[in-house]
Amino acid sequence: MEEMTRTMEFEALQEMLSERRYRELKDALAEMNEVDIAEFILEQPAEKAVLLFRMLPKEIAADVFSNLESDVQETIIASITDFELREIMDDLFVDDAVDMLEELPSNMVKRVLKNTAPEDRKLLNQFLRYPDDSAGSIMTAEFIDLKETMTVEDAIKRIRRIGEDAEMIYTCYVTDSRRHLIGVVTVKDLLLAQDDDKVIDLMEEDVMKVSTQTDQEEVARMFSKYDMLAMPVVDNENRLVGMVTIDDAVDVLEEEATEDIQKMAGQLPSEKPYLRMGILETVKKRLPWLMILMISATVSGKILQNFEAAFVAIPMLVTCIPMLMDTSGNAGAQTSASIIRGLALKEVQTRDILKIVWREIRVSLCLGICLAAVNYIRLMIMFPHHYLESLVVSITAVAAICLANLMAGIMPIFATKIHLDPALVATPIITTVADALALISYFMIAKALLPI
Amino acid sequence: MEEMTRTMEFEALQEMLSERRYRELKDALAEMNEVDIAEFILEQPAEKAVLLFRMLPKEIAADVFSNLESDVQETIIASITDFELREIMDDLFVDDAVDMLEELPSNMVKRVLKNTAPEDRKLLNQFLRYPDDSAGSIMTAEFIDLKETMTVEDAIKRIRRIGEDAEMIYTCYVTDSRRHLIGVVTVKDLLLAQDDDKVIDLMEEDVMKVSTQTDQEEVARMFSKYDMLAMPVVDNENRLVGMVTIDDAVDVLEEEATEDIQKMAGQLPSEKPYLRMGILETVKKRLPWLMILMISATVSGKILQNFEAAFVAIPMLVTCIPMLMDTSGNAGAQTSASIIRGLALKEVQTRDILKIVWREIRVSLCLGICLAAVNYIRLMIMFPHHYLESLVVSITAVAAICLANLMAGIMPIFATKIHLDPALVATPIITTVADALALISYFMIAKALLPI
Repeated sequence: MEEMTRTMEFEALQEMLSERRYRELKDALAEMNEVDIAEFILEQPAEKAVLLFRMLPKEIAADVFSNLESDVQETIIASITDFELREIMDDLFVDDAVDMLEELPSNMVKRVLKNTAPEDRKLLNQFLRYPDDSAGSIMTAEFIDLKETMTVEDAIKRIRRIGEDAEMIYTCYVTDSRRHLIGVVTVKDLLLAQDDDKVIDLMEEDVMKVSTQTDQEEVARMFSKYDMLAMPVVDNENRLVGMVTIDDAVDVLEEEATEDIQKMAGQLPSEKPYLRMGILETVKKRLPWLMILMISATVSGKILQNFEAAFVAIPMLVTCIPMLMDTSGNAGAQTSASIIRGLALKEVQTRDILKIVWREIRVSLCLGICLAAVNYIRLMIMFPHHYLESLVVSITAVAAICLANLMAGIMPIFATKIHLDPALVATPIITTVADALALISYFMIAKALLPI
Repeated sequence: MEEMTRTMEFEALQEMLSERRYRELKDALAEMNEVDIAEFILEQPAEKAVLLFRMLPKEIAADVFSNLESDVQETIIASITDFELREIMDDLFVDDAVDMLEELPSNMVKRVLKNTAPEDRKLLNQFLRYPDDSAGSIMTAEFIDLKETMTVEDAIKRIRRIGEDAEMIYTCYVTDSRRHLIGVVTVKDLLLAQDDDKVIDLMEEDVMKVSTQTDQEEVARMFSKYDMLAMPVVDNENRLVGMVTIDDAVDVLEEEATEDIQKMAGQLPSEKPYLRMGILETVKKRLPWLMILMISATVSGKILQNFEAAFVAIPMLVTCIPMLMDTSGNAGAQTSASIIRGLALKEVQTRDILKIVWREIRVSLCLGICLAAVNYIRLMIMFPHHYLESLVVSITAVAAICLANLMAGIMPIFATKIHLDPALVATPIITTVADALALISYFMIAKALLPI
């Protein structure tokens, strides 16, 4: 229902735009949610996007801007005046400004910084130095800090005074005179207390916090585990420098899940939505792994070549190759997906490796025996009287599944141990290695049991 | 660093537990975060888990309880007295109680409901009737409702009065005398306004809301898109019945990503962490797709069988089979992963199908030509003088990649159209179909160009 009404709303806007009913369009935009306006702008060609952006009321322009993709942000910055740019920069939260600056070409970064108020510029320059993917790169500087000596009344007064510019007012941090983080107090705590209660008595001193260098995924994982709305970020001397808010943590979780899915499918990760990525860019993300895997498949080819004599003797063996390769590859993909996701969610640790091996051996034997039994019956129907050959294929199925699952269980753990992303060794590599293992066991078992 | 200190903390607790220093242990637990306590309890065998749970201070017992896995919750309920159970049920939020009841065996559900206060029991019974995976099943009943006639002062007084029991106080809903949802106002709005301002003037009337029947993934997606902290849930007559909070939305997003990853790897979805799932349960989740795919691989086998004559004539063709099957399977997996994730994130819609086809044709040609060129060189080195055979393999590579990518682009869209989960048709099916397509094109091209 939601989707339907929005589609209709967009169609009405599109009509006003193409019929140049700009006054009407302007009024309609002023009524809309910033996220939806951004989505509508993103659907338009460049010059229309700029036109629409300029129609927005000043109060929401910065909010809409922070929801646009970086290529459209670039187009807009290139087309607006320094005065307009200055207004946007005044209203943008630091984390959104940093996001934008990270993607802009350097000549534009210069122009943007030139049109930023000096104190904000200093902050932006500092924030831009934090590593990509660190807590520093996603934090905001607009938080509320309180002193421990304040009463609840003082604290609420301060929130009322500076709350307008803060990105999140509900979690407030208590700092000492040298800006060291010494406690956290929520607006809920303050509201439920008496006016003359002291902040020092209400605050939680055991504050969960991260450093500017902490990996953003780790930060996001803490949000989801501890159900927080905000997380303070401190520097090496425990001085409060920023705050990560739940909305940014959610974005990180979504991005990381997307990246893991991309990597597990053998693509280089990309933040751009599928339809907004250029053809050549798409090719660049997909080609490397395809190339590496194609070349590695030479190994399986070589193995097949070495057993040519066997094909000629018993062609039935050849017809079972796709089944054996696919089944072991699929089994390995199941296992590696479980382990990789488990590692990402911290449900599995590297120290669990022996547990994993023992689990996978038992699971593989159960799976292998079920599949081999059904397969034997299938082969008996398709190739009557080939008892021994069918037995070879079925034994191979069990062996190949065991090998594939063991490898798929161990490799992501091993990758984590040597500080590689486990998602990188996923499905494609597993499939390629599983293929080679399946073929080798196939022909070894065939050689042992058949007269070839 | 965080992880390190926690591991050390856990080791200290473990020591106290095994040395039966219970008083010390009790004090240590009282200092800890509920989520960490739950994690520590989950690492223990059943009888120790119950012992630990009983040591907890009353104020945090319900919070810890709601963070436990359902099997441990069941053990605990089975071992505590009705009085203890009643205390927990009094403190649990409705959404956590519903989560628990959904997993418990029916005789235990009866006992739990018997020990719940009558008004809560009525609510629980109502909530249990909402479909699994709906907004109704994840919402909480503990929200703050205001009247439009209230002043800011009245509103804040009401929040202070009923805020203690509410799960989230920062988003308040305005209802009329018949409980219809007419507006939303945040604590930020209230704090930044004057004491005698009226709620009616502050509230946003265009409320984003969902119905009890809305799919939980759609709800969660709205949170991540619109950066909300809470979402009101209404019944068919627009009466406010509950509220979904951001922490539950984050859990849903994580669960859905995990499920998609599992489905894309050909497993039936499961909510249990890898290491907590039984062996037979794991087999049950993995076997169905492996079986279906194994049987489907018969098709590829049959195709190979039909071209037996060609193998015998030119064995080099056989050695290239794994490479062609793997490459087309891998290419297809890349494409389907992109489309499936795009659909989940609403970045791709079913109406984009022609755009997808056109994109994938261009991407496939670029990828295919690069890979075929490298492959031709590789074959020329490994099999000198087999110019024509190498050409056949390379042309097949281009064709197979195009076919695999087109199929992988279209199938998830088609699945969505017929209301199937696109993640179900992912990697495993794509790989199997891509294999068959690769083999068919291989031998058709070989037949056309080679004397076989």
